[in-house]
Amino acid sequence: MGRRLFKELERAYGFDEVAIVPGQVTINPELTSTKMNVGNQEFEIPIMASAMDGAVSPGFASHMHDMGGLGVLNAEGLYSRYEDPYSILEEIISAPQEGVTEFLQKVYSEPIREELIGQRVREIKNSGATCAVSFTPQNTKRMSPIAVEAGADIIVVQSTVTTARHMSNSYRGLVFSELIDSLKVPVIVGNCVTYEVAMELMESGIDGILVGVGPGAACTTREVVGVGVPQVTATLQCAAAREDYFRRTGRYVTVITDGGFRTGGDICKAIVSGADAVMLGTPFAQAEEAPGRGFNWGMANPHPELPRGTRISVGTKGTLKQILYGPTSRTDGTQNFVGALKVAMGMCGAYTIRDLHKAEMIVAPSIKTEGKFFQMSR
Amino acid sequence: MGRRLFKELERAYGFDEVAIVPGQVTINPELTSTKMNVGNQEFEIPIMASAMDGAVSPGFASHMHDMGGLGVLNAEGLYSRYEDPYSILEEIISAPQEGVTEFLQKVYSEPIREELIGQRVREIKNSGATCAVSFTPQNTKRMSPIAVEAGADIIVVQSTVTTARHMSNSYRGLVFSELIDSLKVPVIVGNCVTYEVAMELMESGIDGILVGVGPGAACTTREVVGVGVPQVTATLQCAAAREDYFRRTGRYVTVITDGGFRTGGDICKAIVSGADAVMLGTPFAQAEEAPGRGFNWGMANPHPELPRGTRISVGTKGTLKQILYGPTSRTDGTQNFVGALKVAMGMCGAYTIRDLHKAEMIVAPSIKTEGKFFQMSR
Amino acid sequence: MGRRLFKELERAYGFDEVAIVPGQVTINPELTSTKMNVGNQEFEIPIMASAMDGAVSPGFASHMHDMGGLGVLNAEGLYSRYEDPYSILEEIISAPQEGVTEFLQKVYSEPIREELIGQRVREIKNSGATCAVSFTPQNTKRMSPIAVEAGADIIVVQSTVTTARHMSNSYRGLVFSELIDSLKVPVIVGNCVTYEVAMELMESGIDGILVGVGPGAACTTREVVGVGVPQVTATLQCAAAREDYFRRTGRYVTVITDGGFRTGGDICKAIVSGADAVMLGTPFAQAEEAPGRGFNWGMANPHPELPRGTRISVGTKGTLKQILYGPTSRTDGTQNFVGALKVAMGMCGAYTIRDLHKAEMIVAPSIKTEGKFFQMSR
Amino acid sequence: MGRRLFKELERAYGFDEVAIVPGQVTINPELTSTKMNVGNQEFEIPIMASAMDGAVSPGFASHMHDMGGLGVLNAEGLYSRYEDPYSILEEIISAPQEGVTEFLQKVYSEPIREELIGQRVREIKNSGATCAVSFTPQNTKRMSPIAVEAGADIIVVQSTVTTARHMSNSYRGLVFSELIDSLKVPVIVGNCVTYEVAMELMESGIDGILVGVGPGAACTTREVVGVGVPQVTATLQCAAAREDYFRRTGRYVTVITDGGFRTGGDICKAIVSGADAVMLGTPFAQAEEAPGRGFNWGMANPHPELPRGTRISVGTKGTLKQILYGPTSRTDGTQNFVGALKVAMGMCGAYTIRDLHKAEMIVAPSIKTEGKFFQMSR
Repeated sequence: MGRRLFKELERAYGFDEVAIVPGQVTINPELTSTKMNVGNQEFEIPIMASAMDGAVSPGFASHMHDMGGLGVLNAEGLYSRYEDPYSILEEIISAPQEGVTEFLQKVYSEPIREELIGQRVREIKNSGATCAVSFTPQNTKRMSPIAVEAGADIIVVQSTVTTARHMSNSYRGLVFSELIDSLKVPVIVGNCVTYEVAMELMESGIDGILVGVGPGAACTTREVVGVGVPQVTATLQCAAAREDYFRRTGRYVTVITDGGFRTGGDICKAIVSGADAVMLGTPFAQAEEAPGRGFNWGMANPHPELPRGTRISVGTKGTLKQILYGPTSRTDGTQNFVGALKVAMGMCGAYTIRDLHKAEMIVAPSIKTEGKFFQMSR
Repeated sequence: MGRRLFKELERAYGFDEVAIVPGQVTINPELTSTKMNVGNQEFEIPIMASAMDGAVSPGFASHMHDMGGLGVLNAEGLYSRYEDPYSILEEIISAPQEGVTEFLQKVYSEPIREELIGQRVREIKNSGATCAVSFTPQNTKRMSPIAVEAGADIIVVQSTVTTARHMSNSYRGLVFSELIDSLKVPVIVGNCVTYEVAMELMESGIDGILVGVGPGAACTTREVVGVGVPQVTATLQCAAAREDYFRRTGRYVTVITDGGFRTGGDICKAIVSGADAVMLGTPFAQAEEAPGRGFNWGMANPHPELPRGTRISVGTKGTLKQILYGPTSRTDGTQNFVGALKVAMGMCGAYTIRDLHKAEMIVAPSIKTEGKFFQMSR
Repeated sequence: MGRRLFKELERAYGFDEVAIVPGQVTINPELTSTKMNVGNQEFEIPIMASAMDGAVSPGFASHMHDMGGLGVLNAEGLYSRYEDPYSILEEIISAPQEGVTEFLQKVYSEPIREELIGQRVREIKNSGATCAVSFTPQNTKRMSPIAVEAGADIIVVQSTVTTARHMSNSYRGLVFSELIDSLKVPVIVGNCVTYEVAMELMESGIDGILVGVGPGAACTTREVVGVGVPQVTATLQCAAAREDYFRRTGRYVTVITDGGFRTGGDICKAIVSGADAVMLGTPFAQAEEAPGRGFNWGMANPHPELPRGTRISVGTKGTLKQILYGPTSRTDGTQNFVGALKVAMGMCGAYTIRDLHKAEMIVAPSIKTEGKFFQMSR
Repeated sequence: MGRRLFKELERAYGFDEVAIVPGQVTINPELTSTKMNVGNQEFEIPIMASAMDGAVSPGFASHMHDMGGLGVLNAEGLYSRYEDPYSILEEIISAPQEGVTEFLQKVYSEPIREELIGQRVREIKNSGATCAVSFTPQNTKRMSPIAVEAGADIIVVQSTVTTARHMSNSYRGLVFSELIDSLKVPVIVGNCVTYEVAMELMESGIDGILVGVGPGAACTTREVVGVGVPQVTATLQCAAAREDYFRRTGRYVTVITDGGFRTGGDICKAIVSGADAVMLGTPFAQAEEAPGRGFNWGMANPHPELPRGTRISVGTKGTLKQILYGPTSRTDGTQNFVGALKVAMGMCGAYTIRDLHKAEMIVAPSIKTEGKFFQMSR
């Protein structure tokens, strides 16, 4: 027909729609290294726990450090609003599902107490862990110096959609280059999903970007406002920006795919898509050590007028160590993420995370396991 | 293979298959304006309630006006067939599902009483509201002057499929240019789904077009006769016609996507597809103020020989104010449509509806939420 | 990647994946004609009942004639194997589902009695109806003259896959050009699904081709042997052959899409795909007049070693007249096929079946009606 | 948009997404031959039973030989770890589902006893059958000579992903050309999925390759590590390598598609994709003669730290003879695989397996049989 259309639409892909192609050379998983950097900070594994109150408490951040990863504390969450956040957690956990959104809306309307930010940072630092805390753009300028002052090693500036140029009447748009200059610690900014925004953010001098808008199931941003880009395509775009920026400037910015993960396989796919690291919430909320004790809820959920998502029961699946390193007897890909990553690296002949960036990927809709398949493969 | 085929088929898309890409600049939702025009009439919000008897009564049209939108009264529905339509509504609502189609077929075989058309228009005008009434093409020439005489501000001419050139033995095809000249109020015509028909209708001088054939679930036009175009592609085509027509003539015709909406996100997607406004039925039938009291049925449903659709129980979900403006604790996108639109505009850096036309959209199949996803994003 | 592949794969489409685009001109359904020809035989409606024993008995063929269509009798089915087929039908209908395949295998192992073929043809002719009977290629040469001798007006030669050049040790491949010469009545041959085979069959002088391999749900040919082409693509190919053949020779061969229909909308889509007529089984097995009394089974089902399909309970949905012409209160597209076709023709501005060939069609995956859509369209 | 992406993604296809197009000539199934070769070994049917302990015991290998096919014994499975593997099988079969993965992990941690390898080979040879045994790459160099010494006719070297160049610290990568030289029996290697790896493996002198990574439902390799290629695309690539290699060298390497099969139709599709043979596990585990007595589990399942898959109950469906040759009254494609293959060959006009390679295939999503389709085709 050659129809005249107002605009063209390109196809985007999510984790469920792709698969990694094995490489031409294979290596033993023992030979692989999963090291990753954010600015001057190095980590043994490219896995972060996201700033969700049900997943990361100061204590959990310490556990993540012990495991070689990084747990980001939400500096605007319960831990900065309540002297005793644990009793509030208890109330959230025990609230009936009916009405829990209203309850979250109420709990999160309590003001942030700036002195608590410093206190939580110190708790993390005192445990010997690397400390990363997250702020929304509105509060970053005022509150992030408090966190750095208290010893924070990494500042994360995060909202559902973040750009280098935000327009507002109520506050002056955050200027990232000024922030970088003043803080003198690595800054991670997000979330974004396109080449152009990733490039502009990198040019402002930040050290890492968070990739992902509306990819998750519990987050209903895409349902409620229609905005979102599936994670494989979002990562492919931001990684293209990182490569171009690196070629031009010699500075390597860490790309962190944030959200939408279901299995260890998805983590591998994010990295093949170009991510240097991944950030997950619910899998860590499922750890025995998690503060949410089997429950999780997102930062956009308690929005007072347009909540997106709710508290979900995610269950407790094992220790943090099992989730990251196994051994496991679960066969659904939800444990031993590092083991899975190393096996995938072996199958693709990748010694390092950046080697894994070179692996091929195909579009291959996920396997239906409706019980009617009778073939078991090896 | 390069197979020889009788004709080529292009891919079309619906709301569920696309997602909006955040913009390069973001703005605070408070800075956005959702104003929209149809001819000389301006509205605060680009949202109309469709001419379905279960959704729009004269009283409901008044409520829509108070909320900044427009409710269209079906001038060939119960309100123009019965002196006391409310008792008939009562009967429809309480009819057993088994047999309700036959009952609707019978109720709508009662003749239209022309004096009731004027009476309903006056009821709406007396409430202070803008009055829009809809007719089928067959009755427009004879009945629409009655409505305008009584004070109607906008005439809607609507059938399942409308073209500028309809052939009939039983009545002379409606000539829209003659209608425009005689009525002297804005005229909205529909439904159409292609560039060519939209262009021909615009050239006849009309002020707005309704976009959508067979998109909804309760409407079974596509099942029964196989005809239909998904709303994103239909809107992309009609918006392309509007742009070309505007460039050529300087006259801007309002494109209204009608039907197939499921969430606030779908409304945002329709506008990114090029719509200036949207028209919805069931979400308004779900308002506490709606005459259908939790039930709705379409205009094509009671067709005496080939009914398409039936009465469906849609439930009551909240007040009209909550549905349009929140606040809400629902997280499924079915309330606070205006809030959702303003958030999407903010994420895309759009100050106005026409700015939002410039946002990008991608093809991204809807997220499966079968409970097997464990990641909650922010 | 530009992967090297052993062969290229093209996309094919079924009814569920396409939708008809309304035309630039619309006409009133009363102005449309649904006439259709096979050789010298003209029919009021382009709808045939297929040669399935649960659908077409001699009596049912007579009813189809009265309705303006054509019912094809299976000349190798129960009616030609049993003096009293009705008691056998009774047994099939009342057999328990468990074991019914074995029972069908047994019932159809009874030999065909040639004298019964003539008897059934005469029953149909005596009712005043046009008589069409079907044979498999193996038996056509020997048995079809018996049917013509008895008065048959149309011979159908049908197997799962038929080509102009079949190789066999046990019988000489049927030569269609010789068959045409000897029979002197219109011959319909099938089934085929590609341009090349359709063209070769047309060149042999036949009057109609049946299109469709493995499209239906009850037929498991595609499951069992992996062979099949969805009906829209199959019809698009065979119709392209018909057009090319017509342009070259001036002879118009009737293309009949056979099987895979679910609704009246599917019938409309087959014709927009280029079919001149459609052939259906189960919808007619659902008629009150059908010999299967709510059950149906296919010709490939009772294969003694590799059965494909089984007896299915299809229910009784109404009279043949209601199924073809309504009026109906069903809103799912399974009744009033002719009404639906005329409405679609009206929406596409098609006065005749061949006009409807010119309508546009798009790829538009079928609407999900999982209850989560809240919009009812008109 | 012309988005900048880090890498391009191509579409890959599985069995469920394609269908075979009937040929221009058809032949009677009796005229077809299903013969197949691996090196100097010829087989009547191109069907192998895979080296899974629930499917192939020495006794089962003998049954497969009698049927014209080949059963591969896992030389590192229970039969080589336990003097009396049958009591262990009994324990696996009777273990509760809860905890069976741990139990498999434990059972398979028992060391391989080299003397048992020879013993099992002799059991198979003594029955008069062709003997094929499989090893993992780590153990092949040391253990495969023992098997050949004992009389093995074919050596299979198999791991989830195998390349010609594997890097390891703990053992020197297996050099296939050296292996071929030393063993002097045909060697089959796998699994691989790409043109490049297939080509490199062929160039090392091997006689057959196994195609398939992560295609099955019970295997969760794709879930757990994200790696996999659907079988149609994998086979299309490896077959392209075979053709190019054959054209260049005159040596024909057998391509064996391994895993992911659901029906006889899938077997036909693998061969149309270019496979010379297929290897299946579960369908044979479903035979009355199978050692797993209705249960099956994969070789990657008992991995001590990252298990992929588990024991699944597959049921017992009939004798091996019925599964391969029928006759059957099942209509779901899970019996009479050879009959199905011969029917497909007939429909495509293929006298031999290599003729069937020339058939066309299309992309045609699998038929939904949700009961809402009412058409039964023939």
